[in-house]
Amino acid sequence: MNLQVAIDRVSLDRALHLVGEVRAVADIIEVGTSLTKDYGMESIRWIRRLLDEDGGRRPKVLADIKTMDEGAYEFEAAYAAGADYATVMGAAARATVEACYGVAQARERDILIDLLETSPERIAALQGLQNAVFCIHLPKDGPASDIVAKVNEFCQAYPGIERIAVAGGVTLDQVPLLAKLPIEVCIVGSAVTGADNVRLAAETFAAAMKGAR
Amino acid sequence: MNLQVAIDRVSLDRALHLVGEVRAVADIIEVGTSLTKDYGMESIRWIRRLLDEDGGRRPKVLADIKTMDEGAYEFEAAYAAGADYATVMGAAARATVEACYGVAQARERDILIDLLETSPERIAALQGLQNAVFCIHLPKDGPASDIVAKVNEFCQAYPGIERIAVAGGVTLDQVPLLAKLPIEVCIVGSAVTGADNVRLAAETFAAAMKGAR
Repeated sequence: MNLQVAIDRVSLDRALHLVGEVRAVADIIEVGTSLTKDYGMESIRWIRRLLDEDGGRRPKVLADIKTMDEGAYEFEAAYAAGADYATVMGAAARATVEACYGVAQARERDILIDLLETSPERIAALQGLQNAVFCIHLPKDGPASDIVAKVNEFCQAYPGIERIAVAGGVTLDQVPLLAKLPIEVCIVGSAVTGADNVRLAAETFAAAMKGAR
Repeated sequence: MNLQVAIDRVSLDRALHLVGEVRAVADIIEVGTSLTKDYGMESIRWIRRLLDEDGGRRPKVLADIKTMDEGAYEFEAAYAAGADYATVMGAAARATVEACYGVAQARERDILIDLLETSPERIAALQGLQNAVFCIHLPKDGPASDIVAKVNEFCQAYPGIERIAVAGGVTLDQVPLLAKLPIEVCIVGSAVTGADNVRLAAETFAAAMKGAR
């Protein structure tokens, strides 16, 4: 299970500082939707540049652009700016999701389909996109057992989907449960970036994931 | 019926040039999704600044940010950057649409709900948001008669919706038909911005709208 740290609702300066704090342990750094909307593709370029420049560890970069339309244009732009992953909404038109997937395949980059407000019928229709990562949003305030049930239900309902990410207020005590499930990416946001000691919080999450393996 | 000119998939320099070409006749200038994603809120700030600076005609500015989540954050940012209108997806969670609507009401600005991939049930649930503009996407290649039928069906299905916009490859010969319908905003994109003479194309659309009244 890979650790994705989402950076959101901060200035670009603060975002670059946070990247420095988490890069030693994060597998993927998410340039949050708010950053891409506030600063545009510059947010992705700056984070890519920071990671490439100094010879340090280089996590992958995910651009959470939440594409709803103009799939090819937006995915080309995100990859050109340096993203390894870009995101499209599962609720977008099927042709849009497929356009994004096509660009991802052509560029040999990754695509994450955000299942927020996506109907079961739509998910079923998309499960043939085998190289895509499908992102389940967990209920933020539910008990930990609900997560296990939810992911298991998802796997049974969509046996064609092999790459799964989970997001939505993931807490440290949920990590051991999540680590037992067939989840490729665990997305953590403010539990890391909002911590008093961001570096320590990221290390604690990463250690919990490794310990639970 | 107001003329909204959408500016999309161009550099910021080109966008500013296009604003200069259409501002004399456009009622609303749309900062297209691609501009907001490529350049972030700077795209809105620059266009706002251009319109405010020189004492010329000042059309309203619509930021087509297509919010899917974090409604309050994104709408506050768009309005702070100078947008008069911001857009949310009808396919977003109802709480997200309502958060956007709440900010629009509080800031006394406008909100446009983009009905792309929005189910009839969801539209019905949203029709109580009386001050919102609801944007119907027209089939790009259908005959003109289909547009009349589509808008009439929409009005009958959702009698609570009074403010309607239409978008989707609107052509000059469709304008007389559209002008007879209860449409508040007609959105035109590449038919104007892709024309050899952009200024003339905008003037022609504006004249067709006035002539049809």
